Amino acid sequence: MLTYDLSKRKGSSIYEYLYKCIKEDILNGKILAGDKLPSKRTFAKHLGVSTATVENAYSQLLLEGYVTSVEKSGFYVNQLDNSKQKAKEKRPKPLEEEFEYSFFSDLRSNRLQRANFPFSTWARLMRYTISSHDEALLKTVPFNGIYELREALCNYLADNKGMKVEPYQIFVGSGTEYLYARLILLFRSEKWAIENIGNQKIANIYDMYNAAWSFVDTDENGPLIDSLVKENSNIVHISPANNFPLGNIMQVKRRQELLAWAAAGSDRFILEDDYDSEFRYKGAPILPVYSMDTEGKVIYMNTFSKTLIPSLRISFMVLPPALVERYLKKLSFYSGTVSSIEQYTLAHFIRDGYYERHINHMRNYFRSIRDDLISEIEHSPIKEIATIIEPSAGTHFLLKLDTEKPDCRLKAEIKAKDIDVAALSDYLLTKNRDTHTLVINYCGIHRDRIHETVMRLSEAVLAPFT
Amino acid sequence: MLTYDLSKRKGSSIYEYLYKCIKEDILNGKILAGDKLPSKRTFAKHLGVSTATVENAYSQLLLEGYVTSVEKSGFYVNQLDNSKQKAKEKRPKPLEEEFEYSFFSDLRSNRLQRANFPFSTWARLMRYTISSHDEALLKTVPFNGIYELREALCNYLADNKGMKVEPYQIFVGSGTEYLYARLILLFRSEKWAIENIGNQKIANIYDMYNAAWSFVDTDENGPLIDSLVKENSNIVHISPANNFPLGNIMQVKRRQELLAWAAAGSDRFILEDDYDSEFRYKGAPILPVYSMDTEGKVIYMNTFSKTLIPSLRISFMVLPPALVERYLKKLSFYSGTVSSIEQYTLAHFIRDGYYERHINHMRNYFRSIRDDLISEIEHSPIKEIATIIEPSAGTHFLLKLDTEKPDCRLKAEIKAKDIDVAALSDYLLTKNRDTHTLVINYCGIHRDRIHETVMRLSEAVLAPFT
Repeated sequence: MLTYDLSKRKGSSIYEYLYKCIKEDILNGKILAGDKLPSKRTFAKHLGVSTATVENAYSQLLLEGYVTSVEKSGFYVNQLDNSKQKAKEKRPKPLEEEFEYSFFSDLRSNRLQRANFPFSTWARLMRYTISSHDEALLKTVPFNGIYELREALCNYLADNKGMKVEPYQIFVGSGTEYLYARLILLFRSEKWAIENIGNQKIANIYDMYNAAWSFVDTDENGPLIDSLVKENSNIVHISPANNFPLGNIMQVKRRQELLAWAAAGSDRFILEDDYDSEFRYKGAPILPVYSMDTEGKVIYMNTFSKTLIPSLRISFMVLPPALVERYLKKLSFYSGTVSSIEQYTLAHFIRDGYYERHINHMRNYFRSIRDDLISEIEHSPIKEIATIIEPSAGTHFLLKLDTEKPDCRLKAEIKAKDIDVAALSDYLLTKNRDTHTLVINYCGIHRDRIHETVMRLSEAVLAPFT
Repeated sequence: MLTYDLSKRKGSSIYEYLYKCIKEDILNGKILAGDKLPSKRTFAKHLGVSTATVENAYSQLLLEGYVTSVEKSGFYVNQLDNSKQKAKEKRPKPLEEEFEYSFFSDLRSNRLQRANFPFSTWARLMRYTISSHDEALLKTVPFNGIYELREALCNYLADNKGMKVEPYQIFVGSGTEYLYARLILLFRSEKWAIENIGNQKIANIYDMYNAAWSFVDTDENGPLIDSLVKENSNIVHISPANNFPLGNIMQVKRRQELLAWAAAGSDRFILEDDYDSEFRYKGAPILPVYSMDTEGKVIYMNTFSKTLIPSLRISFMVLPPALVERYLKKLSFYSGTVSSIEQYTLAHFIRDGYYERHINHMRNYFRSIRDDLISEIEHSPIKEIATIIEPSAGTHFLLKLDTEKPDCRLKAEIKAKDIDVAALSDYLLTKNRDTHTLVINYCGIHRDRIHETVMRLSEAVLAPFT
């Protein structure tokens, strides 16, 4: 009769251990198809356990289809394929987990410095959310976002961006990429226009979804209307407040031209990505094109990844009323993607004025880091060959170098000094054209390392070119 | 000369107010194209402000393209289109915000009852995360999820599901719908198979992405191999532990057949949605098909929406090694979608044993609610016409009624008693076939309302059918 050493069962209950042993023996062929299992009573006696225990084990085997019960006879083993189990089990070779390398200075990523986020305030508001909204947290997340957050955003947009928006126009999602994907689904048969400079990642996303798109010609003001018309595009993607990476501001004339272009076709829209516009160091805020739109042609998009912390995945978009209706019809069956706790916390953070205060704090911080960095460069060995091109917003500037070195060589030599940096050519369509220009993102630089960073940069730039 | 009442400027700085006033006047045509703005000095004297203030206002107008600066002459207003601004501004008519209606009993949604989630533990772990991982929270979220969470999941899956998984195989995302969408992009040219009973929402998602799919024939064990072959499907979607809504467990023979079917084609895979499998009330846990797979053919998916709280948007999937490689190549450029704070919090919650304890607590809670509900039905006026079909897992059972009433009539009469409930026909392809069967989700019912709920249900069911 089947015998199992019940003392080996460790944490399992007896019936569970018994069921597992028999299952194993069926799968590895020790018990054959058609075999009858011992009667419950006999087997129980044999093992020194209760009949109920054996019965539970047999029930589980029956439930999962390892045995069949024949009335008034007993349990018979089913015909199963046990060849696979005999095969030597292939254990996947684990890939090395990639632990992120930390450069001496990272002038590329949007990683922030410690102490630049009010963690204790955030923790307090989260605790408050958990204690005061526990009822709401037990429900599913609304597909368009928590009402309180959308309301707080409306007030913020009215006060800071000159935008008149109602909460029903706002859609919250876990990242702008996620919201892009929503829009691609919303505009299944439309043709997108992407500026032929800037964020190539957008093109990747459109490709991934098999969306129709083309690059359009641009000047320092953004997309050219003629090119939009020629490419037969419906929806144009712009960042008028701070066009990455050059940092141009779209002049009012082009804004009006784009609005007129959009108004001329019922299926034409403008997607305005207002990313990075909060950190302006000079002059009044640049209001979004959305605030000038009287025809409902602009989709406005923004994120909190950069103004708060990159590990918070909350973005939002504002749809014109006509598109809200289309969205509800087509996409409202999707679940929300941002946890309610974080949405409530952010709503409180904005409503209680912490967000505005944080933006002001960060603006001052970034301004002083930028000024220090530029001043260091202006007193460094490369001062004679360096030209700084400064956008009036964002957290980067361009460093144009009068050098023969190709961009890839420049980057490699700088990397050898443990500094990560991008070149302007990384963001151009014709990547192999040398720009001799570095894109310096000063978001994550340590203040104490500014001097040393500029020294290393200079050494790398001035190293002989052979 | 232009005159503005600077006392009306409210919170704005003088230069900002001045800039706004001039801008308005240019846009509404009070100042015409070609007009020269007053000289800075004269204008400053006129307004009683400093020249620097006027200079700042003019600079901003220049920056945004409202005026042009002509050397040694002054600032001239640009030719702009000001017709749009004159048009009466259309204010969108706000839609009514839909505030969720609360039924006396909601037997349809997955909304939880208060006190069933350890909010204080969660709050404490969040606070701990914020104080101990602040460095990590300043970085962007890894596209595949925080390492600590993926590691905790591996241990959980090994201990509870018999799955041998490495952290690099795990991908965290904000909801299973989001992960489905990732898989649709991963398998762009493949054909999906969906069981012809169950969650129709999946079909909607596939349609939205223009993915190729077809329904396949099923029996109580899930998809039939012949039908998969006939439909020429590559990837089949299954829930073997608790097939919704019938609650069947896929027997070991069909599991083996599916694995053999998948092993027979290099492009064939099984997508196993293990949703709802944690709440089993009888017998040992049903191990996933993944744990039987020796050929790397199963994609495993699960969510925390149901086992924790629905407002938490964290799901994950486990890819077999070969697909990990494909994913990295094709989709790793996407940003992560779940905030790091919540990922760390969940990792601690699992690692410290709170998750297992919570699952046990909820299992006992749901079991007792279910027992009470069933016992009430068995002593109610409908006891003679009611048959209860009980899945051994999940949070619902089927209530089959010996009645003439069509399903829609049944639901309407029950709704009139302020109880929301679904019928089995809601989950069938042929929705108009009457099943006379209700799907009772007891996830969100108040314990004190069980008796009254069953009374109301009985009254509705037994009301004369005319």
